[in-house]
Amino acid sequence: MSYQPPVQDLMFCIEHLSGWEKLSSLEEYSEHDLSDIGAVLTGHARFCAEEVAPLSRDGDMQGARFDKGRVTLPEGYARAYAQFVEMGWQALTHPPVYGGIGLPRAVGAAAVEMLNAADMSFGLCPLLTDGAIEALLLTGSDDQRATYLEPLIAGRWSGTMNLTEPQAGSDLGRVATKAVRRADGSYGITGTKIFITYGAHDLTENIIHLVLARTPDAPAGPKGLSLFIVPQKLVNPDGTPGAANAVNCVSIEHKLGVCASPTAVLDYADAAGFLIGRENCGLEYMFIMMNAARFAVGVQGIAISERAFQRALAYARERVQSRPVNGQSRDAVPIIEHPDVRRMLMRMRSLTEGGRAMAVATAGLLDIAHHTGDPETLALAEFMVPLVKGFCTERAVEVASLGVQIHGGMGFIEETGAAQHYRDARILPIYEGTTAIQANDLLGRKVMRDDGETARLFAARIARTEAQLAKGDAAAQAIGAGLAQARGAFEAALDWMLDSSRNDIDAAFAGSVPFLMLAGNLAAGWKLAHGALAAQTARDAGQDPEFMTRKIATALFYARHILPECATEQARILHGAQSLLDADFPD
Amino acid sequence: MSYQPPVQDLMFCIEHLSGWEKLSSLEEYSEHDLSDIGAVLTGHARFCAEEVAPLSRDGDMQGARFDKGRVTLPEGYARAYAQFVEMGWQALTHPPVYGGIGLPRAVGAAAVEMLNAADMSFGLCPLLTDGAIEALLLTGSDDQRATYLEPLIAGRWSGTMNLTEPQAGSDLGRVATKAVRRADGSYGITGTKIFITYGAHDLTENIIHLVLARTPDAPAGPKGLSLFIVPQKLVNPDGTPGAANAVNCVSIEHKLGVCASPTAVLDYADAAGFLIGRENCGLEYMFIMMNAARFAVGVQGIAISERAFQRALAYARERVQSRPVNGQSRDAVPIIEHPDVRRMLMRMRSLTEGGRAMAVATAGLLDIAHHTGDPETLALAEFMVPLVKGFCTERAVEVASLGVQIHGGMGFIEETGAAQHYRDARILPIYEGTTAIQANDLLGRKVMRDDGETARLFAARIARTEAQLAKGDAAAQAIGAGLAQARGAFEAALDWMLDSSRNDIDAAFAGSVPFLMLAGNLAAGWKLAHGALAAQTARDAGQDPEFMTRKIATALFYARHILPECATEQARILHGAQSLLDADFPD
Repeated sequence: MSYQPPVQDLMFCIEHLSGWEKLSSLEEYSEHDLSDIGAVLTGHARFCAEEVAPLSRDGDMQGARFDKGRVTLPEGYARAYAQFVEMGWQALTHPPVYGGIGLPRAVGAAAVEMLNAADMSFGLCPLLTDGAIEALLLTGSDDQRATYLEPLIAGRWSGTMNLTEPQAGSDLGRVATKAVRRADGSYGITGTKIFITYGAHDLTENIIHLVLARTPDAPAGPKGLSLFIVPQKLVNPDGTPGAANAVNCVSIEHKLGVCASPTAVLDYADAAGFLIGRENCGLEYMFIMMNAARFAVGVQGIAISERAFQRALAYARERVQSRPVNGQSRDAVPIIEHPDVRRMLMRMRSLTEGGRAMAVATAGLLDIAHHTGDPETLALAEFMVPLVKGFCTERAVEVASLGVQIHGGMGFIEETGAAQHYRDARILPIYEGTTAIQANDLLGRKVMRDDGETARLFAARIARTEAQLAKGDAAAQAIGAGLAQARGAFEAALDWMLDSSRNDIDAAFAGSVPFLMLAGNLAAGWKLAHGALAAQTARDAGQDPEFMTRKIATALFYARHILPECATEQARILHGAQSLLDADFPD
Repeated sequence: MSYQPPVQDLMFCIEHLSGWEKLSSLEEYSEHDLSDIGAVLTGHARFCAEEVAPLSRDGDMQGARFDKGRVTLPEGYARAYAQFVEMGWQALTHPPVYGGIGLPRAVGAAAVEMLNAADMSFGLCPLLTDGAIEALLLTGSDDQRATYLEPLIAGRWSGTMNLTEPQAGSDLGRVATKAVRRADGSYGITGTKIFITYGAHDLTENIIHLVLARTPDAPAGPKGLSLFIVPQKLVNPDGTPGAANAVNCVSIEHKLGVCASPTAVLDYADAAGFLIGRENCGLEYMFIMMNAARFAVGVQGIAISERAFQRALAYARERVQSRPVNGQSRDAVPIIEHPDVRRMLMRMRSLTEGGRAMAVATAGLLDIAHHTGDPETLALAEFMVPLVKGFCTERAVEVASLGVQIHGGMGFIEETGAAQHYRDARILPIYEGTTAIQANDLLGRKVMRDDGETARLFAARIARTEAQLAKGDAAAQAIGAGLAQARGAFEAALDWMLDSSRNDIDAAFAGSVPFLMLAGNLAAGWKLAHGALAAQTARDAGQDPEFMTRKIATALFYARHILPECATEQARILHGAQSLLDADFPD
């Protein structure tokens, strides 16, 4: 089935949840109004639906291929990528000074969602390029920015992140790739990097690898890492790609999903690398890139969820099977009429829209924080990033699995397409930091470090939304009640966490992922509730009443079916640590 | 990694949870003592680990192959199956009069678990044969039993279930395959059946298809179906396979998982079929076969969970990454030391052992009911079957997914093996009746039909276990408290369901799957708690204290981490129906 980009809901989120009033008052974004943005997203939607989505199934079947050091992508990828470059889609959120369009991140998130929903294997290439651009913008020298940013933002070159080595996954302190300074100021990079997404391919004129490596005298561990630019082809003085650098693709992986996206093993044999910033600060710089990439991976979760939902919905409408349980028809009906199929569809829809609402809101906070420098907004934005990554990706696995289930036996047949989403989704809670790593980030850096201040701000903002809901109709009040209960669970868990952080750090981290899931669930429920308030106002004003009614219904379903899980997480956190830490695993 | 069959835990469940005292007092089982059974399971374990488990990875890669109507299984399958036949493993639970060994179902469940953990694609062939044997035993004529049972029980012939057609999946009333009576009393069977597991293969001398079809004058819908034996090769008067019957394999499916198990499209072109029992009673007979198969599919869920757990545990022990969060080591440690990895491992272990405990207990109830005819025991056994199928298979998907997660990036690489379990597991909540179909069975046939009587008996039995736990030590009391809370959630949901069944049937079925999950969770927690009591007694008597302590720890973890989900399901059921039924899906 074809992909129908959810432009209306994306625009709803941008208008009502991204802090648009504030955003559009910033000088940087003052030139863009909502109708321009709608036009941009509509154009991007068309490209995604017409040019990219049709590649997804065949791309998965063919996969990326490796032969004698060269990687070939599936048929149609080169043509679609060339169009992507021609239309300038890489440039959306990047600064005009390097050829970008300078749109807010919330719009970028919408575009990333649509591209990855169309074909996640395809979408990964621009996603990594975005990360490289972000890192160079924030940490590159003037010269480096002048050399690399324009072709990256144009999409003519792509970017990669080279972190992982066989012994260094979550634990980047174990990175062993060497960087030896040469007389000309460049470095000779030697080592093997694995799991490099789009580490080798034939779509672009050049590939700019950002590589973590260790200089000979660097301290051991994470504080001895430096970040280098290693272009696949060295850049000529006139800015064109020149001689080949000593980086070779040794093989690509045979993966469960995203099969058309090449995951390379790269061998660096004294390749020329150029230091970014200062030596031994590499991990810090890489985190800048990772934070953007983590947010984007969360958005990929929403993308897969949306696509899986659309496919399941189409099947549920067309598949006729069994009479309704209420006896209202003597004939079999489309399965969408059966309560449990509706339950699964609503679960899919509410988790998808909840994730989207939360992601767009976070994008807005990031931009406002970035441009105003307001520390409270920045803290809240950074609190939200691991929630977007952790919650939306774990839920994507669940949503894709429900999508298979709705298809029954057909879901297990590869030709149907539902299984591909289930396979593709599974990488999301792993790459760019596993869910446990997100949870450590949340708990260690975003909760314990400021002694819960930002977490309490988060809860206080939610309480404000509850107060508004309390003044509304029965549906609004019910949503508010669900939110209040979930917020109570969060606050109880937070108190316990802060207490444990002082007395029993193992016990605190035993509940880190439940805490992340609780906070993520609450954040999505909050932003859906926030959206329901906006929908109520819009409906009262006669704007698209069907759509607005559906937004409220989705928020209500979420409050009734998903938010109650917060209480379970609370119970696990408060009462589950000991039984976990005491467990013994025999040989 | 190699598979280590969990014989000790299986024997623990048989001894303490299958009602062994009662079972062994039955005349049918009086010849078998626990040490015999231990020896049989140890022998089967060796076969599974040494001969079958090594086939799983290559079998998945090669897959079943189809060429010009012939299906070829992966290398090594034929040899392993020949050994399976030679060692008589198909015969375990079947009656001695046809060459069986006549062991209780609890032992059969243990064997099914080990075979499917070793290689689910391989295990499916004997699993379907078991179903065919069961159906023929209970509904076949003397003559039919004499002809087919001995070679099926010997494993020389295999069996299949032919229900599904393109338009008839969950809705078997739509079956259109025709059966026309011939002068000699046989029937000409014509039609197309899809999704036929092991519908064509080269492992056995003959394949006995059990086929649902419709005679010309039969009523429409499910009450017009008859069940037929359609041998792939007609049987000669001396019992040997003879001329080919008009059944052809048209193709096999390209599936997400269990790739070595051929899923056939079978074309029946006036094939010779032999009526089982009476015309128009086919669905009733098929349900007999399906109940056995449903229970077995639940056991497959436990099998996949166990295998995924073992693989994740081995990886977590060997993979060294990151320092511990409590600062107790300056070096990186095996990831099993990290609290969140332990959380995932304990989740996997407790769900696996909980499923096993529940399945073995159910097997015991089925046998006791079958041989004593006690109606209460039968009702309780039949109440448990959809829980075993629904809960253990849904959880298998979750457990396999956690297994991938523990492996990090390596989990997404097919060579690692974790991804195969994730793919294989996904069929389990679908075939032999989707989770929604199990939930309908539970709610419609096992709860509403007797106005909750059996459900209340189930709750009362649990309360009895709680009372015993209350007399125990702190761990026992904590397990009991968790169980009491979950039982309370079940009873509240039950009251609501019975009330809704009279007033609002749609609302009741809106909560059918949450109700199934609630009851399944409770049943597994109950049987783990029951096991903890037995482990306490055994430990006090000095029996294997390490193992017994671990059983108690697992039950406690389950009570703290999994049972609290019951409250969420209760909330969904009581407060979630309207938001689900009101939902609107736009075109």
